[in-house]
Amino acid sequence: MRRGKLLYAQSGGVTAVINATAAAVIETARAHGIKAYAARNGILGVLREELIDTSRETKSAIAALHHTPGGAFGSCRYKLKSPDQDPAEYARLIEVLRAHDIRWFLYNGGNDSADTALKLSQLGRRMNYDLHCIGVPKTVDNDLAVTDCCPGFGSVAKYTAVSVAEASLDVASMKDTSTKVFIMEVMGRHAGWIAAAAGLAGDGPDTAPHLILFPERDFDAKDFLKHVKATVERVGYCVVVASEGIRARDGSLLAEAGGKDAFGHSQLGGVAPRLVDLIKQHLGYKCHWALPDYLQRSARHLASATDLKQAQAVGKAAVEYALAGHNAVMPVIVRTRDQPYRWKLEPVALKRIANREKKLPKSFVRRDGYGITAAARRYLAPLIQGQAEVAWGRKGLPRSAKLRLQAVAAKLPIYTI
Amino acid sequence: MRRGKLLYAQSGGVTAVINATAAAVIETARAHGIKAYAARNGILGVLREELIDTSRETKSAIAALHHTPGGAFGSCRYKLKSPDQDPAEYARLIEVLRAHDIRWFLYNGGNDSADTALKLSQLGRRMNYDLHCIGVPKTVDNDLAVTDCCPGFGSVAKYTAVSVAEASLDVASMKDTSTKVFIMEVMGRHAGWIAAAAGLAGDGPDTAPHLILFPERDFDAKDFLKHVKATVERVGYCVVVASEGIRARDGSLLAEAGGKDAFGHSQLGGVAPRLVDLIKQHLGYKCHWALPDYLQRSARHLASATDLKQAQAVGKAAVEYALAGHNAVMPVIVRTRDQPYRWKLEPVALKRIANREKKLPKSFVRRDGYGITAAARRYLAPLIQGQAEVAWGRKGLPRSAKLRLQAVAAKLPIYTI
Repeated sequence: MRRGKLLYAQSGGVTAVINATAAAVIETARAHGIKAYAARNGILGVLREELIDTSRETKSAIAALHHTPGGAFGSCRYKLKSPDQDPAEYARLIEVLRAHDIRWFLYNGGNDSADTALKLSQLGRRMNYDLHCIGVPKTVDNDLAVTDCCPGFGSVAKYTAVSVAEASLDVASMKDTSTKVFIMEVMGRHAGWIAAAAGLAGDGPDTAPHLILFPERDFDAKDFLKHVKATVERVGYCVVVASEGIRARDGSLLAEAGGKDAFGHSQLGGVAPRLVDLIKQHLGYKCHWALPDYLQRSARHLASATDLKQAQAVGKAAVEYALAGHNAVMPVIVRTRDQPYRWKLEPVALKRIANREKKLPKSFVRRDGYGITAAARRYLAPLIQGQAEVAWGRKGLPRSAKLRLQAVAAKLPIYTI
Repeated sequence: MRRGKLLYAQSGGVTAVINATAAAVIETARAHGIKAYAARNGILGVLREELIDTSRETKSAIAALHHTPGGAFGSCRYKLKSPDQDPAEYARLIEVLRAHDIRWFLYNGGNDSADTALKLSQLGRRMNYDLHCIGVPKTVDNDLAVTDCCPGFGSVAKYTAVSVAEASLDVASMKDTSTKVFIMEVMGRHAGWIAAAAGLAGDGPDTAPHLILFPERDFDAKDFLKHVKATVERVGYCVVVASEGIRARDGSLLAEAGGKDAFGHSQLGGVAPRLVDLIKQHLGYKCHWALPDYLQRSARHLASATDLKQAQAVGKAAVEYALAGHNAVMPVIVRTRDQPYRWKLEPVALKRIANREKKLPKSFVRRDGYGITAAARRYLAPLIQGQAEVAWGRKGLPRSAKLRLQAVAAKLPIYTI
């Protein structure tokens, strides 16, 4: 048996399938006879030496993670400073890993987390501690560089396309005496991937969603109102999907909520009511709006089978890469064919991924700026394919994993953050 | 073959399963050799003589209605005045029915529609026109008198319970560094049935949803904040489900949006942000909120199998009652057993249903006012049982019915409303 343990941690906003990645990590580690710990609340759990011994969980509890949304071990929004700014924090991480003989660290998150994993691997080398750090991709935002797509995205994409398709049938049936304009606000601070996925529900400007607002394009109120009016006059109603992060030409967020989260990102969530105000004021149409918020990224009941499979595959590959001696890499998804969709995984250096952000290519946005192109459809369509199996319980609700979350006894003095 | 035709119309807010009722109506009429028309946009289509000949639809198109949300023939929010106030309007309805030899009129809606069907049957009698009017129950609000429940409700109940269960796992996993309070606003102007259904996701004040706000109870900001604070301190986070129609003790709506719909009901949709403001201001917690709006009532992908079955059954029964000579009745659902759930249909006079509103009984609300009781669970649990089959298309999206909607040639002068 190999020396050392593996530590897995979840970072940032959770998804419908991040626990499937966790399950794959733990199951693969077990298959290799490696003890796997999980950090409670992501990197904070490492700093605080709050570790969970996953070997205390039953096989069926781990299997249940495959169909449980959220982050079973706790995630966090906590951005480490750079090792130069706060060397003590990084030193503490290595100290905790060393105390528990952690030799493989798997960090499941987005580009911030890839950066943390990269820095930790560099520090391990510098501190002469034999450590293999693997980034494991996860983000509903789909904004990681290099990889074809990000586990978590396919499911939110499917949720968004299905939800807007269903709600549009509702709006269409009442348009003559009730709501004329329906607005659905979706996640996406800087990249319009989720909004673009909504476009799969229709097939052009005459089918819902009629207008999509991307954060990659400046929001122009006058032009938007012109398009809403034209759509209502032409089609009888108008369904709009708006990214939370749309901005005016001067860069100001349409829905600045005032607060900022721990990463310094603005906390959003008010684009839809702002658009409704605009439309009511200038066009007088009756409007409704929806804000699915966390529902969209936790909707395991509507997850994409393709996404689930990828989430599991990156977890398995991450363990295999780690045990094979890879360091500072991430398993990325490489598309080999569009239709039928074929993909494989390969290890890519974290430095090519850390802190980068992949926006929607210009070729994916329709010339008028309010829809998606055939190229976007070709890219997006496979990602929402298939319905991930749901573990329905007897009460008509999905069953979710119940973990013991047995704490590992601490070996170091308490560290206060 | 019997003389005359059957006319079916959809009224008010649509649901995930109202088209299943329509399909059952049309299929049952066909089985009896009766020609079925549908009114375009509910009662407005009757007034305007905009009728659709459903015999022009293929069998498979009608079958597809069983899994298509929204109202396929168009619905409307249009309240008729009383026959005394506007005798011409009622006379026009009879005139249109007579012109097309409509002998059975099936009106699929809530208590407003039951009232219209009742008045029309009375007027038919007075005008010596042989007409049978049947109310067909439908409303996500579940507020119809007499019937055990209303088709449409079981599915929105299931959507609400599943969605809050999933989102709560998300919130729980991030609670230490991100959102502490999550608020989900649900439909329910006067009756808290949908909010109550959310309670099925948990099992008391220590499980999400921790607090439910019902329109049947006066909203007391101070008491609410006390409960939010206590929950966060005890559990680490707090999930709140709020009915759109909650009011302060003075009767004022917490989220008066200003507008009113065609029935004179206030148009709501802003309770959640108001609650968020309150919490931020007084407790300083980071909050998120969701407003599923139309998503909740059109989520056919997450419909209750029980609800679907009932929606189909009331459609079939309505045709059978009509052909058997019933008049001014509605097929209502009678519960004969809680567990396993057993129910049957029976005809009940519309005058016992029209214009009445069934609120949540006091015995269904937990003593502290913020949750549901065992009696509520006993009532609600069967209604979300089973997953209605979804017709998934090749693109990973549900397939929906494509109807021809062939218009019947008008026989009368144009009537302008």
